[in-house]
Amino acid sequence: MQQITQPTLILDERKCKTNIAHMARKAEDAGVEFRPHFKTHQSLEIGQWFKEHGIAKITVSSVGMAQYFATEWDDILIAFPVNVRELTAINELAGRVKLSLLVESVEVLELLHEKLTHPVSFYIKIDTGAHRTGVAPTDFASIDQILAAAKQPGKLKFVGFLSHAGHTYHTNAITDILKIRNDENLAMLQLKAHYIGSHPGIIASIGDTPSCSLVDHFLGIDEIRPGNFVFYDLMQLSFGSCSPGQIAVALACPVVALHKDRNEMVIYGGGVHLSKDMLRINQNSVYGQLVEKEGDGWVEPIPGMIVKRLSQEHGIVSLPKTQNDKFDIGDLVYVLPVHSCMTADIYSQYITTDGKNIERFRHS
Amino acid sequence: MQQITQPTLILDERKCKTNIAHMARKAEDAGVEFRPHFKTHQSLEIGQWFKEHGIAKITVSSVGMAQYFATEWDDILIAFPVNVRELTAINELAGRVKLSLLVESVEVLELLHEKLTHPVSFYIKIDTGAHRTGVAPTDFASIDQILAAAKQPGKLKFVGFLSHAGHTYHTNAITDILKIRNDENLAMLQLKAHYIGSHPGIIASIGDTPSCSLVDHFLGIDEIRPGNFVFYDLMQLSFGSCSPGQIAVALACPVVALHKDRNEMVIYGGGVHLSKDMLRINQNSVYGQLVEKEGDGWVEPIPGMIVKRLSQEHGIVSLPKTQNDKFDIGDLVYVLPVHSCMTADIYSQYITTDGKNIERFRHS
Repeated sequence: MQQITQPTLILDERKCKTNIAHMARKAEDAGVEFRPHFKTHQSLEIGQWFKEHGIAKITVSSVGMAQYFATEWDDILIAFPVNVRELTAINELAGRVKLSLLVESVEVLELLHEKLTHPVSFYIKIDTGAHRTGVAPTDFASIDQILAAAKQPGKLKFVGFLSHAGHTYHTNAITDILKIRNDENLAMLQLKAHYIGSHPGIIASIGDTPSCSLVDHFLGIDEIRPGNFVFYDLMQLSFGSCSPGQIAVALACPVVALHKDRNEMVIYGGGVHLSKDMLRINQNSVYGQLVEKEGDGWVEPIPGMIVKRLSQEHGIVSLPKTQNDKFDIGDLVYVLPVHSCMTADIYSQYITTDGKNIERFRHS
Repeated sequence: MQQITQPTLILDERKCKTNIAHMARKAEDAGVEFRPHFKTHQSLEIGQWFKEHGIAKITVSSVGMAQYFATEWDDILIAFPVNVRELTAINELAGRVKLSLLVESVEVLELLHEKLTHPVSFYIKIDTGAHRTGVAPTDFASIDQILAAAKQPGKLKFVGFLSHAGHTYHTNAITDILKIRNDENLAMLQLKAHYIGSHPGIIASIGDTPSCSLVDHFLGIDEIRPGNFVFYDLMQLSFGSCSPGQIAVALACPVVALHKDRNEMVIYGGGVHLSKDMLRINQNSVYGQLVEKEGDGWVEPIPGMIVKRLSQEHGIVSLPKTQNDKFDIGDLVYVLPVHSCMTADIYSQYITTDGKNIERFRHS
């Protein structure tokens, strides 16, 4: 860590492996298939840590990510509406691995039908309330239309229904998250019950980290796909999905200025290093939270030391009077990110607290 | 453009060159030195477009960026508080180019004094109200302390005072920006007047794009350092710093879903592609604005077509009824970014509307 000169993403391998083990055991205990979403870590090496728990199927959110993981994984779901401009790459992938896609319109299904050169499984995306993508769970007309089109002989195989209760991210209370989860679960159960007779063997797949972290039962659900839990972050902490000790990534940032007169410290670590994702806590904007260092790792958040403003390269940290004498220019501080998926996406590698380099996928 | 399959940053070279020419002419007419900030474009090739206007000095915001530009530029200011963890790289740079640094404390100045191996110029950073970094313009005690320390024989040369009125970014009215600019100008004038007797030849340098775009006079100012103007963006448009036709970058995004029932369209283009920087306009969150395409370029914004929500890979666009029949799944739409510095920072290259690749620096 002494050699770090610039904002650097640090990974606590032990915390990360504990998060993975915990979710894998939860899925096993609940008797559901675990198809983890790899969009958060985007790393082949971290993927290997899942293999140690017998995980064989994964979820990703882009064709590029699927190509990256296809070197070591042979059952991949791209949980993003089919981007028909990438059909060449999709066909190439489907020739190498068991590929699953997400469909929500008959238009895309018919295009796939026409253009696919290899067998592909598809889920129908169900909108259980997030209103991002998908068909309403009661919109049998649209679902029937897709299923009718899928019955033509061809490369497409219908495997089930998939939802992502992303609206859990817009709540502030655990009870709200649990209510959303229950509604989602019920909607997916009813949907599966409606179609299982005509389509034996279909499954119901759900996904978000808040609800997968907060509940232990997945009644009638066959597959879960959380992703963020691998690292967690301040947003998940604010939901109650994790404890501070479970957050497995931090951004190491040099201190470049102290302004004790206005209770502020400036770090080299701005919007291009942390991302501009923000939490509102008690009317305050929060872009990160400083943690107490211990060895090359970190322990508890330091009360009151919040990254409260960001410009391109600067982070402005609130510096309570009690911390006034604890920091010098040139120190390296650790910042817990608001949204680890967004922060990690900026980097091409992690440095572990043991000093190891771990590569990750880069999309652009 | 037909070959674009994923979110891709498009640059309109003509608009960009016009923006550069306009600001270069304004500086020349006003008789101020133009030391453009290169943190927005971060590209050697775009840098060449400045050389055509006789520009010989540049500003950057990190040591890494300075290293990148040092292959073609020999007078570089790093307009970020000295990160003392990078002194080895700073020394190496100072051996190759005329390097200027930013100092705001006697502590850092003394450290530089001790460790520098080559001559370096320094500006004192003045806080004219942004309260990010710097010394208050009336804090003569702190300034005197720095100047006294700088008088020891060594590698350091004091060249003047530098401010960045970043608080122009927190206003909504042109009158507020103009008031901030006037206050800044006055503060810098008074400061220079106070010290010019004892330090002949010192200069006053100011910087932000909103005020440099909105005014034509820089009374008593010697140097301007705007950066964002090279591309402009929706934030600058909201300040009145530019017109829509001056915005020189757009993100090309595939359409992946249509939800006409709720007046929405989903594009492949999320937080990791646009950045999460946001504008609030009439209580609404704005993450981007669709523009009308013309040839491989773009013309006017399409009224009502706002990127209103972002997740990691998805952008949710409002789709007015009048636009209902104009988009199909698989179309490529162009999105003007809220903050071009943040969006461009995600990419390692630009594709021009003429189909040319332009490389840029990547910090991590």
